[in-house]
Amino acid sequence: MVNETQHSCSASSSSRSDGGSSSGSESSKDNSRCSTPVLDADRHERLREKMRRRQDAGDKWFSLEFFPPRTANAAVNLISRRVLQGGPLFIDVTWHPAGDPGSDKETSSMIIAYTAVNYCGLETILHMTCCNQSKDDITGHLQKAKRLGLKNIMALRGDPAGEEWEEEVDGFNYAVDLVKHIRNEFDDYFDICVAGYPKGHPEAESYEADLRHLKEKVYAGADFIITQLFFRPETFLKFMKDCQAIGITCPIIPGIFPIQGYHSLRQLVKLSKLEVPQEIKDVIEPIKDNDAAIRNYGVELAVSMCRELLDSGVVHGLHFYTLNREVATTEVLKRLGIWNEDPRRPLPWAVSAHPKRRVEDVRPIFWASRPKSYIYRTQEWDDFPNGRWGNSSSPAFGELKDYYLFYLKSKSPREELLKMWGEELTSEESVFEVFTCYITGEPNRNGYKVTCMPWNDDPLATETNLLKDQLEKVNRRGILTINSQPNINGKPSTDPIVGWGPSGGYVFQKAYLEFFTSSEIVRALLKVLRRYELRVNYHIVNVKGENITNAPDLQPNAVTWGIFPGREIIQPTVVDPVSFLSWKDEAFALWIEQWAKLYEEESPSRMIIQYIHDNYYLVNLVDNDFPLENCLWQVVEDTFELLN
Amino acid sequence: MVNETQHSCSASSSSRSDGGSSSGSESSKDNSRCSTPVLDADRHERLREKMRRRQDAGDKWFSLEFFPPRTANAAVNLISRRVLQGGPLFIDVTWHPAGDPGSDKETSSMIIAYTAVNYCGLETILHMTCCNQSKDDITGHLQKAKRLGLKNIMALRGDPAGEEWEEEVDGFNYAVDLVKHIRNEFDDYFDICVAGYPKGHPEAESYEADLRHLKEKVYAGADFIITQLFFRPETFLKFMKDCQAIGITCPIIPGIFPIQGYHSLRQLVKLSKLEVPQEIKDVIEPIKDNDAAIRNYGVELAVSMCRELLDSGVVHGLHFYTLNREVATTEVLKRLGIWNEDPRRPLPWAVSAHPKRRVEDVRPIFWASRPKSYIYRTQEWDDFPNGRWGNSSSPAFGELKDYYLFYLKSKSPREELLKMWGEELTSEESVFEVFTCYITGEPNRNGYKVTCMPWNDDPLATETNLLKDQLEKVNRRGILTINSQPNINGKPSTDPIVGWGPSGGYVFQKAYLEFFTSSEIVRALLKVLRRYELRVNYHIVNVKGENITNAPDLQPNAVTWGIFPGREIIQPTVVDPVSFLSWKDEAFALWIEQWAKLYEEESPSRMIIQYIHDNYYLVNLVDNDFPLENCLWQVVEDTFELLN
Repeated sequence: MVNETQHSCSASSSSRSDGGSSSGSESSKDNSRCSTPVLDADRHERLREKMRRRQDAGDKWFSLEFFPPRTANAAVNLISRRVLQGGPLFIDVTWHPAGDPGSDKETSSMIIAYTAVNYCGLETILHMTCCNQSKDDITGHLQKAKRLGLKNIMALRGDPAGEEWEEEVDGFNYAVDLVKHIRNEFDDYFDICVAGYPKGHPEAESYEADLRHLKEKVYAGADFIITQLFFRPETFLKFMKDCQAIGITCPIIPGIFPIQGYHSLRQLVKLSKLEVPQEIKDVIEPIKDNDAAIRNYGVELAVSMCRELLDSGVVHGLHFYTLNREVATTEVLKRLGIWNEDPRRPLPWAVSAHPKRRVEDVRPIFWASRPKSYIYRTQEWDDFPNGRWGNSSSPAFGELKDYYLFYLKSKSPREELLKMWGEELTSEESVFEVFTCYITGEPNRNGYKVTCMPWNDDPLATETNLLKDQLEKVNRRGILTINSQPNINGKPSTDPIVGWGPSGGYVFQKAYLEFFTSSEIVRALLKVLRRYELRVNYHIVNVKGENITNAPDLQPNAVTWGIFPGREIIQPTVVDPVSFLSWKDEAFALWIEQWAKLYEEESPSRMIIQYIHDNYYLVNLVDNDFPLENCLWQVVEDTFELLN
Repeated sequence: MVNETQHSCSASSSSRSDGGSSSGSESSKDNSRCSTPVLDADRHERLREKMRRRQDAGDKWFSLEFFPPRTANAAVNLISRRVLQGGPLFIDVTWHPAGDPGSDKETSSMIIAYTAVNYCGLETILHMTCCNQSKDDITGHLQKAKRLGLKNIMALRGDPAGEEWEEEVDGFNYAVDLVKHIRNEFDDYFDICVAGYPKGHPEAESYEADLRHLKEKVYAGADFIITQLFFRPETFLKFMKDCQAIGITCPIIPGIFPIQGYHSLRQLVKLSKLEVPQEIKDVIEPIKDNDAAIRNYGVELAVSMCRELLDSGVVHGLHFYTLNREVATTEVLKRLGIWNEDPRRPLPWAVSAHPKRRVEDVRPIFWASRPKSYIYRTQEWDDFPNGRWGNSSSPAFGELKDYYLFYLKSKSPREELLKMWGEELTSEESVFEVFTCYITGEPNRNGYKVTCMPWNDDPLATETNLLKDQLEKVNRRGILTINSQPNINGKPSTDPIVGWGPSGGYVFQKAYLEFFTSSEIVRALLKVLRRYELRVNYHIVNVKGENITNAPDLQPNAVTWGIFPGREIIQPTVVDPVSFLSWKDEAFALWIEQWAKLYEEESPSRMIIQYIHDNYYLVNLVDNDFPLENCLWQVVEDTFELLN
């Protein structure tokens, strides 16, 4: 958001949230209750409710603005985890009429926002402007946004294409009309944000007239305001006071722009028609060629301004114009102490923010390292399992054909993958080596570290590190592990490695091990498993679907669960015999799609991978006796012993 | 069953069960799965499937036949737990045309069977005869049986009222016609049992003709056969062989009658037109006035016959004609080693056998000592919660108005209650004393033991005994406990005291304490509870419904759960804030209905109970930190300290 226009006035407040606690009051006798334990209130609240709850609790928060990058690779980077790490309350994605913002392109505003919500679990505001769009275009975009699970719109007029705003004959010419349109057509579905101008909009007749326009937007149905950037805290504080004086009572969030460089500042100032105060110019001009010095100054300035705002008691959240760069913002947030160093995981896996998935709290463990593929393959489900996997009447998994959708794609290009996984494979053993290097973190024989695998797009999880030594040992010998977890017998939910959920709880796990291995090893393994009959559940399947299991019926086995104060039991991951067969298809296909296809057809390297694909088995093992020492390593050791 | 008639032949076998294990075979890819973890296969199988599973597993079983007692008190005794203790596969209830067997009387066959199924969780066969009933009468009874949750019918012609069978003009004259009628009208809903006569039916033309009649009954749709009693094992074994020879392949269960006395034997023999073998007469006649000697002989005889039957390899279950007396049968079963000394509890509470409740696996803890009242108040529900309480869209609880329904009624008559709870109360403290004596098991000041309370129809549970010392201490001082459980951190599911569910699992509990207490104690308690804010959840309510709680929202808190091999988590009891208010109504009403009303109106004793009812609070406390030492005793101690 850089610029925005406005109009005049009428009235309504947006205090639509309520307390929810029945403490001390007479509880109602009716039987209405949540259909699922509200383990994480965030998932069940609208953005405006989250803001209010944070404000009531005295929690300070921040949000981050991004624009759609120009290339797919940049988009992959943008939606990767970085932005999540500090725990923004939301992100927003700007709308650029020239960039085909409502299209299905991987770099469109719509798709970036969709990906952030669905695949990254980020509360997201999609900007929308009146420029170059008819009323019907806008309705179409809003319908699409709703269909894609977006819940928040920043309603803007938008910057004129040329010098002056050209009237939209079939569309809207004022943000207030867009707000009204959204409310008319979509009732209360969207949370609506509008822009405020602490110095008055440059096109407004006067500061006072601009305030009246803002009030009109709020009274037309906006839920909160984000302001244009400003340079002095008193600018914002005066603006806020003036807003309140004329009856604007919704949250007003200051827009913060940490100066990151001389040129970006100049450009932004030009676009937004703001004036940089003399005292800032005085500092900057002499150091304008020293990027580091300017950035340091920018951070200092932003920190001191933000401190003053937060200390005022009227500011609860800060909105950052990142210009897709995060270094300065991250530093400001860290110094303010509102960067969340260890954001609590509400569940062991990252939740999606799509409204349909609000209740989802059980997933098969198989996709633990490929959550985006899981979300993709279940996107057509109408209901998501909660409480129990077995309760779900979920339809089948969608086929994974689009391995190259940008949000499913590996972050590493082909050349890098070849360096990691071998330019040339000479035997099955060279494949074992790749797996082993991935586990150990040691460079491979060509000196490259293996930081991802077809089944794991990221380096080894911290938790898996607990099993590193054993994993290394077995991978060397052809037990090619792709997923595992240690057993956990009641660690605090705040445990930095295995903890999840609210504090005060206890988390548990059954030991899990999943790997590809040869039919020879499988034959020995099956003999060994007879000795562990009641203790270890197994599923063993090859690419043709020949399936060997001792699981009773087709029941799921809960392998991760948590016990929390005042809550029903949460069991977020299960080993489900039915979906294992869908996962099997994907897991085997990845050998070919992601690895074999790196090599020429008919090449020995490709044939080795093809051989493994055709002949190996995918095995999963669960040790049900979670309070005892994990017996799965013993099972594997016994298997090797039998083979010798 | 004493006598029964028969007819001729056509064909079908009853092997309708299937294995269910997919071990070693290719699993189907469709998404059909159980909607609930099959923790206890028994609950999900029909009787004929249970029989087959037991047979396949090589488990020997037994069943027990009862007739409807003549008085309501005798009925209360019959359906009380005794009969369950040894783990019969089923019980059956005979049908006596003279006793209005299909009526709503508390001693009717229909109501006894209904109670056994619904309130005692017993697999039950209801007998039905053709005597004195039109086809429509029979259809009506079958419809009623189905409505009441009965699933098994023993189809009999029945004994003639006089010497000879009188033709039923509008009804049936042969059991086979009744079997056909049930299959015609109710398809496969009922499991049907028919009678077999090892010596041939007394009215049959010949032994061979009788076998053909039996085959006809089976081929008309009967699922299994129970035989008339007999005195020599070879009688049964020959009969079984003869049955198989003509194509009867369904299970045939020998009917065993342990001789319990001279006169009962004579009467039974007369009714069934059987002949007692000379070798038995020779033993019995000389000792006919010595009941104990006859019973000992009867037990010896039955044990040796049963051993021979079981050892034959063709007998898997034994059916006992108890004549409502259990001593001899129990002894035979114990000596045979098929009396189950410690029948595993599938869940911490006794499950109901009504088909609608097949999936039920969560209940509020409040009714733990009044499960029949819980079943009664939820009998109109269409769906029962499973997996999670919060998932249930259960309607409200029915009002408990019928405190005196025979299956809800206390086993103790008024005079006994007065002796236990005090002929005359002089103060609140005399009420404290009653509670304390119930806990300690010590006689009260008049020398009577307090073996039940309005909220607990049975003596203290073994589990509660773990808390006895602390409970005694707090009850003395006016914390009048009615329900409690210790915390459990992962005991084996086979633990004799707190275990439940299949073996190989682990069970857990949060400590729970529920009590009535004065407003003065509540005031102090609330101050103390502030110090335990995150650890202890509480609900405190008086009869007017003034409700104080720190429970988040209206969410249930799981307080008992179990982790089993290859299963999702089971959490059978919860503290549910919503149903607590329904329980509150019942718990307060019991002061008046069961205790105050023992005394004259306006009497001081009645006024004391009325005062407690009007002014005390019902409190429940949960300690969420189940791995630590239970802090609830400290909470109570802190409260008393604060009061001093």
